[in-house]
Amino acid sequence: MVNYRFTFSYDGTRYHGWESKTNADTVEGRIEAVLTRMVDAKVDIHGAGRTDAGVHARAMVANGRLETDKTPEEIKDYLNRYLPADICALDVAVAGDRFHARLNATGKVYEYTLYVGAEKPVFDRNYVWCVPQGSALDVDVMKKAASYLVGKHDFRSFCGNNKMKKSTVRTIYDVDIVKEGDYVHMRFHGNGFLQNMVRILTGTLVDVGYGNMSAEHIPEIIAGMDRQLAGPTAPPHGLCLMKVEYD
Amino acid sequence: MVNYRFTFSYDGTRYHGWESKTNADTVEGRIEAVLTRMVDAKVDIHGAGRTDAGVHARAMVANGRLETDKTPEEIKDYLNRYLPADICALDVAVAGDRFHARLNATGKVYEYTLYVGAEKPVFDRNYVWCVPQGSALDVDVMKKAASYLVGKHDFRSFCGNNKMKKSTVRTIYDVDIVKEGDYVHMRFHGNGFLQNMVRILTGTLVDVGYGNMSAEHIPEIIAGMDRQLAGPTAPPHGLCLMKVEYD
Repeated sequence: MVNYRFTFSYDGTRYHGWESKTNADTVEGRIEAVLTRMVDAKVDIHGAGRTDAGVHARAMVANGRLETDKTPEEIKDYLNRYLPADICALDVAVAGDRFHARLNATGKVYEYTLYVGAEKPVFDRNYVWCVPQGSALDVDVMKKAASYLVGKHDFRSFCGNNKMKKSTVRTIYDVDIVKEGDYVHMRFHGNGFLQNMVRILTGTLVDVGYGNMSAEHIPEIIAGMDRQLAGPTAPPHGLCLMKVEYD
Repeated sequence: MVNYRFTFSYDGTRYHGWESKTNADTVEGRIEAVLTRMVDAKVDIHGAGRTDAGVHARAMVANGRLETDKTPEEIKDYLNRYLPADICALDVAVAGDRFHARLNATGKVYEYTLYVGAEKPVFDRNYVWCVPQGSALDVDVMKKAASYLVGKHDFRSFCGNNKMKKSTVRTIYDVDIVKEGDYVHMRFHGNGFLQNMVRILTGTLVDVGYGNMSAEHIPEIIAGMDRQLAGPTAPPHGLCLMKVEYD
């Protein structure tokens, strides 16, 4: 059995998230089904993270063991022939036997896109959050608020799983917010993110952008260790996993 | 009854084209249903053209008569509240009583987008034609071929309706072909286009790009007045109506 490293892009719109589930159409489930068919034996893969239903990826990394005569390039071609049009195998490579896509990941980049234009974005509707009265958003104050997130913090207040037993300490290296025309791109780079964390960070920064809370309130939210203090969870479809980093 | 001029953008993916049809979900049908509900009387609108199933528009113009106390801005807001997320009313204005969106149109711009990259474009899959072996396409020879299309010609060879009784003479002002990364944008500007004409022009230019026919063959196809001489009809989803012009 050889351990392979896979990189996938996908449009998450019509899936119940990344992770395989019985009786639900998921991205991982689709990929495992094609690989299982290819080698005629059950294949399990492990993603670098779990994206929620409706969340997209430009470069999700996964690993999985299988036995085949095919070259990595042939495996990639097989995947792209049998996967649906909204999932693409970007790369397949032989990995070291100990490589694990989730456990070995040292960083991730997520991008959340807001749409602040006046007209409904018919072509981007599945990839952006159309915030109401988007022109009222103060992007500069959002940048200020984001600067307080950078660093090593306990992000329990931004965790969607309130029964989380493991550590909720994470390091955010950078939050880059750029307004381009009718779009606000918010890029989060960190060593890892908790469940719903990027969506809650986004909902909170948007609250700040509307003036519902001040930028200086962010350190208090972090210190409070209480999900109730942060803003709402932004909808999934504006979110995209851009990159997974390894040493 | 006041004659209004409407401008719409739409993602045509899930519709059976623009034109209202009994028992089929169409863009015009959706818009007429909302307007009919708004004024509580049957409203008919007239589009500047008929886009095929799967074809998109960034600025389809239509006109229709109705009686209402609402301002044009209020009509627009009503439309955007009740139309689905893939149809947007961009503009509503009072038009002259004799304005007819189709009969008064003096020009149209369509854009056809080819995808020539190696990887499946999961996010653009409904808006581009993924041509096989796209990297083999010779865009310069396609530009050469396109130059023969410009001018006033009988485009019968490029008409999808072989029972067309009316004139098949049209004037193409310009065909602009630009390669940007993995995309080839083909912009057709003319005084009007026959049924499937842009799709057949595209299929023919792609044939030339692959070297299946020479650029110099285009004048012979035009002169032959026979649909069989031209290339295949390109798929609908790469096509978008960009603009309708009026004097």
